[in-house]
Amino acid sequence: MNSLYTIAAISTPPGEGGISVIRISGEYTFKLVENIFSKDRSGEGKIEISQLDSHTIHFGYIFENDQIIDEVLISVFKTPHSYTGDNVIEISSHGGTYIAQKILSVLLSNGARHAEPGEFTKRAFLNGRIDLAQAEAVADLIKSKTESAHSSSIKQLEGSLSDFVKKTRQDIINIVSLVELELDFAEEGLELINKTEIKSRISSLNEKLKKIISSYITGKVIREGVNLVIAGKPNSGKSSLFNYLLKTNRAIVSSIAGTTRDYIEENLIINGMLFNLIDTAGLRHSSDIIESEGIKRSHGKMKDADLILYLIDSSQDPEEIRKDIIDYNHSLNKEKAILVYSKTDLSKEDIPDPGIRISLLNDDTVENLKNEMTAVIHSKDIKLSSDDIILTNLRHRICLENVVISLSDAVKTTDDGMSGEFISVDLRNSLKYLGEITGEVTNDEILNNIFKNFCIGK
Amino acid sequence: MNSLYTIAAISTPPGEGGISVIRISGEYTFKLVENIFSKDRSGEGKIEISQLDSHTIHFGYIFENDQIIDEVLISVFKTPHSYTGDNVIEISSHGGTYIAQKILSVLLSNGARHAEPGEFTKRAFLNGRIDLAQAEAVADLIKSKTESAHSSSIKQLEGSLSDFVKKTRQDIINIVSLVELELDFAEEGLELINKTEIKSRISSLNEKLKKIISSYITGKVIREGVNLVIAGKPNSGKSSLFNYLLKTNRAIVSSIAGTTRDYIEENLIINGMLFNLIDTAGLRHSSDIIESEGIKRSHGKMKDADLILYLIDSSQDPEEIRKDIIDYNHSLNKEKAILVYSKTDLSKEDIPDPGIRISLLNDDTVENLKNEMTAVIHSKDIKLSSDDIILTNLRHRICLENVVISLSDAVKTTDDGMSGEFISVDLRNSLKYLGEITGEVTNDEILNNIFKNFCIGK
Repeated sequence: MNSLYTIAAISTPPGEGGISVIRISGEYTFKLVENIFSKDRSGEGKIEISQLDSHTIHFGYIFENDQIIDEVLISVFKTPHSYTGDNVIEISSHGGTYIAQKILSVLLSNGARHAEPGEFTKRAFLNGRIDLAQAEAVADLIKSKTESAHSSSIKQLEGSLSDFVKKTRQDIINIVSLVELELDFAEEGLELINKTEIKSRISSLNEKLKKIISSYITGKVIREGVNLVIAGKPNSGKSSLFNYLLKTNRAIVSSIAGTTRDYIEENLIINGMLFNLIDTAGLRHSSDIIESEGIKRSHGKMKDADLILYLIDSSQDPEEIRKDIIDYNHSLNKEKAILVYSKTDLSKEDIPDPGIRISLLNDDTVENLKNEMTAVIHSKDIKLSSDDIILTNLRHRICLENVVISLSDAVKTTDDGMSGEFISVDLRNSLKYLGEITGEVTNDEILNNIFKNFCIGK
Repeated sequence: MNSLYTIAAISTPPGEGGISVIRISGEYTFKLVENIFSKDRSGEGKIEISQLDSHTIHFGYIFENDQIIDEVLISVFKTPHSYTGDNVIEISSHGGTYIAQKILSVLLSNGARHAEPGEFTKRAFLNGRIDLAQAEAVADLIKSKTESAHSSSIKQLEGSLSDFVKKTRQDIINIVSLVELELDFAEEGLELINKTEIKSRISSLNEKLKKIISSYITGKVIREGVNLVIAGKPNSGKSSLFNYLLKTNRAIVSSIAGTTRDYIEENLIINGMLFNLIDTAGLRHSSDIIESEGIKRSHGKMKDADLILYLIDSSQDPEEIRKDIIDYNHSLNKEKAILVYSKTDLSKEDIPDPGIRISLLNDDTVENLKNEMTAVIHSKDIKLSSDDIILTNLRHRICLENVVISLSDAVKTTDDGMSGEFISVDLRNSLKYLGEITGEVTNDEILNNIFKNFCIGK
C-alpha cells in the first residue's frame, strides 16, 4: 500500500507569486498537519482535522516549534473524495519560494516523505481514480502552451483515447470470442464463421489504428513545438532576424562577423504554433577557439532541428551569393530547410534562386516568412477533423503499433490456415498492448517511465 | 467603492507546476463564476454559489461556450471573511501557463477586470482587513529568499511594526495632551509640567526611533541581498570564480582575454546571506566594439555594487601585479571592495600586498573568501536582538526620519521659548508621519507607489 506513506510537495511553480500550494496525501495527513497547525497565533488553537467536513477551508498558522512560519488556509479533502483518493490537505500559503520550502521542510521533519515527480497522480491511478492515459494527459495539459496542445490533452483527460481503447478492446474481444467459440465446436467439424469475415474485421480495425498512429507527427508538433534553427554564414543577419521575431534585443547584434558564440534559445508562438527559436553562431572556418566551439554547437543544433531557416546575405557580391547557395545545397537536408535571402533592401542584383526574400525594414516580408514556416510544418500534417484523436505520446504510439503488428500476425496466421488457437494467441497479444495504454496491463518500469516526466507536486 | 469592480488574476507564479490558482474578488464574483462553471461535463450542472457555505470547495468544469477548458476546484469565500473582505472565489486548475491564462481570459470576457499588481491586498487594506505596514509585509514575505528576510517580514505582517507605531503614537499623543492642557491654563499663568520633562520625553522617544532607523541598512541587505560584482583585468579568473561559487559552468571560460562580454547575474546564498553575483567583462582598453560595450557595462555594475571582489592574477610577473595593484588603488572605493589574489597555486613570488589569496584547487581558500565577504557586510550591521524591529522598507525609514525631524523641531521650539501652540504643531506633524506608515494618513500617490511593487495576483 503506497498510501501508508504520507507524501508532501509544493504543487505551484517556483518563483514569486501571490499564493503557493503545498499538497499532502496519505493515511497520516491529518495527524501530521494537526501537529504544526493552529487556528490562532498563540499556537494553542489545535483542531482535530478528522472531525472537519471534507471540502472545507480553514484559516490558521503553520508553526515550526513556537515560531509562526506563515498565515495559511488549509483545504481538507477526505478519502476517497480527493485528487489521489487518499486523505489530502492543501496548504495555501503566501507565495514566494522561501515560505513554501520552509513549510515543506516542516512537514518533512514531522514525518512526511517528499513526493516524487507525478506521485500524487500515480496514486490517483493506483487508487483507480483515473486510468493511465488520463494520467499522462495531466502532464501534457500542464505543459501545453498552445490552444491545439491544450485541446488535445483536455480531450485525452476527459477520456477520448481511453474510450477509443475501450471500444477497440471490445471489438477485438468480440472477434476472440468468435474464434474461441469456433474452437469449442471444431471437433464437431462445424464452421460457425468464415475466415474471410474475421480477416475483414481485423483489417478494418487495423486501418483505424493506423490512421490514429499517423496523427502522432502532428501530435508531436502540438505538444513539443517546432525546433527552429536560424543558420547561415557569419553576418547573414541571423541575430537580427532572431531579435526581430522575438521583438526584443535578446541577442547582441553587431556588424562584426562572429558576434554570436553561445547559441540562444527562446520560445515563440507563430500563427498558433509553438516554435523553439534557436540563434546560432555563423558557419565558417574560424581559428578563434571560442567561436569554433560555438560553430560546433551550431552544427549540433541543425542536426536536431525540425526546421532550419538558412540565411544568405543578399547584399553581398553575386559571386559570394553563388558560393553560399552551393554551401546551402551541399550541407543541408532540404526537406527541413527554408532558404532565406536577407537584407534585400541592400541587394545589388536580382537574386536568381528560389527562396524567401526578407528585409527587416519591411514587416510584410517577415510576415511572409512566418507564413511559410507554419505552412511547411502544416504540409507534414495529415488532415484531421476536430473529433479525431491525435496521438501526442510516443508510448501510446508504440503500444498501438504493437497492436497493429499483433493484429497483422492474426491475419497472417489465418491466411496460413493455422488453427484458431494460434489466431487467438495473436489477438490476445493485441489486447495486452491495448491494455498498456490505459494501464490495465502495466508494470513498475512502465509506471516509473511515465511519472518521472511529471513535475513534482502533481 | 472599489469592490464594485470584480477583479481577477492568476495568483500562482508563472511556469509549470501541478496547480494554478486564479483569484476573483468583488461584488459580482459569484454571478460571474456561475456563468462559466458547471458541476458536470455536460455543462448543465449549474449551481447558485451564493447559496453555498463560505469556505467550501466544489469540483466542476470551467467552460468557454460549450468547450471544457479544465476540471477545477472552486473555493468560495463570502464577504467579509475573505482575503480582500469582498466575495472571493479561487479557481484551482491544472498547472501550466496556458490553462491559467485561458481561464483568466474567459473571466475577463465575462466582465471581470484584470487586477493590477497588489490590488487584492490593496482592497484588503481599503476594507480595513490589514493596515498599510502589514500590506507591505505581504510583498516582502513573498520576495523573501532567506530566513532573516522571512522572519523580519512575518513579524511585520503579524503587526510588530504596526504595534510599535501605535505605541509611539500614544506616547506622542500623551505629550501633545500635556502641552495642549497647559495651553488651556496658560492664561491663568499656571505651569503644569516643566519644559525639561517634555524635552526629555521627546528625546527619549527620538533615541528609540533613531535606533530603529539605523536598522534599515541591515534591513536592506536582508530584503534585497548584496550586489556583489566580480571585477578585474581580463583573464584574472573572474568567470572561473563565478562558476566555482555557483557550482555550475554558467559562464564560458577560456584562456583568451575578453571571453566574457555580456555580464552574467545569478543569485547565491552564502552563510545565510543573499548575494546577487555579477560576473563582468575584464577591464582593459579594447578596440573590439563588442568587448568595449561589455567593459562599459562592467563599470556601471561596479558603481552600483554593494561589494566588489577585485581579482588580480597572482601568476603574473611581479611587475604586472604591481601595475594591477596601482590600478586597484586608483579606481575603486575601498570601503566596498575586497582585493583578491587569484591562481595562487601558480604564483611565482610572494605577494607583497594585503589581500585574500585564493586558488580554485583549494576549497579552503574559497571558504575563507566567502567568510570575508559575509564578515564585511556584517561589519556594517548594527547589533540587534531578535526582538528588535528591523526596518526593511525605504518608505518606513523616510516616514520615521520625518517623525524624528518633527520631534527635534518640537524640542527646538521648546528651547526657543515658543508658546505651546507651536510645540503642538510640531508634535502633530510627527503624528501625521507616523500615521503614514500604517496608512491612517494616506493618499493615492502613496498607495499607488506601494502596490505597484506587488506581483499581480496578490
